[in-house]
Amino acid sequence: MPRYKLLIEYDGAGFRGWQVQRNARTVQGELLQAARRLGAGEVDLQGAGRTDAGVHALGQVAHLDIGRAMEPFRVAFGLNDHLPPEINVLSVERAHPRFHARHHAEGRSYLYLISTRRSAFGCRYAWWIRDRLDLRRMQSAARCFQGFHDFVSFADRDLDPEASTTVDIDEVQVEREQDLIVFRIAGSHFLWKMVRRIVGVLAEVGRGRLSESEIAAWLAAPSTQPAQWTAPPCGLFLQQVRYKDEPWEPLFLPAFPLAQ
Amino acid sequence: MPRYKLLIEYDGAGFRGWQVQRNARTVQGELLQAARRLGAGEVDLQGAGRTDAGVHALGQVAHLDIGRAMEPFRVAFGLNDHLPPEINVLSVERAHPRFHARHHAEGRSYLYLISTRRSAFGCRYAWWIRDRLDLRRMQSAARCFQGFHDFVSFADRDLDPEASTTVDIDEVQVEREQDLIVFRIAGSHFLWKMVRRIVGVLAEVGRGRLSESEIAAWLAAPSTQPAQWTAPPCGLFLQQVRYKDEPWEPLFLPAFPLAQ
Repeated sequence: MPRYKLLIEYDGAGFRGWQVQRNARTVQGELLQAARRLGAGEVDLQGAGRTDAGVHALGQVAHLDIGRAMEPFRVAFGLNDHLPPEINVLSVERAHPRFHARHHAEGRSYLYLISTRRSAFGCRYAWWIRDRLDLRRMQSAARCFQGFHDFVSFADRDLDPEASTTVDIDEVQVEREQDLIVFRIAGSHFLWKMVRRIVGVLAEVGRGRLSESEIAAWLAAPSTQPAQWTAPPCGLFLQQVRYKDEPWEPLFLPAFPLAQ
Repeated sequence: MPRYKLLIEYDGAGFRGWQVQRNARTVQGELLQAARRLGAGEVDLQGAGRTDAGVHALGQVAHLDIGRAMEPFRVAFGLNDHLPPEINVLSVERAHPRFHARHHAEGRSYLYLISTRRSAFGCRYAWWIRDRLDLRRMQSAARCFQGFHDFVSFADRDLDPEASTTVDIDEVQVEREQDLIVFRIAGSHFLWKMVRRIVGVLAEVGRGRLSESEIAAWLAAPSTQPAQWTAPPCGLFLQQVRYKDEPWEPLFLPAFPLAQ
């Protein structure tokens, strides 16, 4: 079966996450349905990573198999014609038949937005925190996560038994942009809820309620503590899935509406 | 009754417009409900302008009467505590008892966003147009609207019989910002659907299907033609309601999420 590599953006607010489910509107489910309407026979679609309900993507990657070969641009137009507007296929290219969106990914990056004011528009895309947050403290604590660590304290019971809890974190950046605090977290792979727990813990650091030594302890030995500060899904964006020889995309503030 | 001047932003996607209606979720309805929960007796609320279902506001103004005086910041916090997150009271100040949000407004400005690409996030806040649009042609035609004109050809049967169909348009700006075309239309007052018809007609000019002479003819004599090109509500933002001695806000691209 011909295989294609898809780059996809979606507003996750109206979906029960990526993973196809019976009786629930999911991103993978909508993509599979649109792919069947291409009229190219049997279809299969695997994403590079699952995103939870309410989580957005600027650059999710998936591989799509269809029954017979079509021009990539026809696949892209055909899918978009049958997709709801909140899911958008940004590009389609023909892939090697053994290309695997998840197994071949060498890194992922996420953006997370905290809004420091109540915002009618931000409520869908950012976590509003009333408390004053100390940016320097958060930036300093963010460095604790960099490098190889066992993130079992930051993971929920994982759905993917193949995933190692040892993760190589490339960078955790924290920057202020007007009324937002923008996080970019890049690494080899991420465990379930791990990004949201890193952000939640850093917000507690910003409030002055947690310190770097506690983060160091949780990275040294398993703890159930970080789970209580899991940040809400609305602020999270899967930014990039990185493959061999590709550069990382930098931290940026998504435009309104998102322009890339 | 003490009167307050409110500055309000809202994401209109989930509302049946501004105007209170029985059995429909509206912005005015939500504000009235929140005001009643202040526990300060009888309430009344009048907006500077009605917005249609799906239309957003960055700076709607309303005057609010409550039964007994409260500190303005308590009114603001109290309202926001009872409002859905898509409606946000940006500021509250005590107003003269005869201040009238609509009658005293000397000008209004609107932003309108056209997206030149399909966009998962833009679908809620911009009108996606596939056709190539000629920016220069639109910018040139936009100047036809400036000054005093009878806009009856651009108005729907108006709900407000007080409003004159002669409108003083201060400026119609059209600028490209990455994948967006941003319009700013400022004037004395606006008739029902007038902004959306100006934008719709300018998009037709951008496509090369209408010319400036047709616009001039519709401004010189009544026509039902412009109605067919009414732009969709999702791209429209009430930007500013201007009162005596206040300056105009410039054209800008709303940040994501909106930061002011």
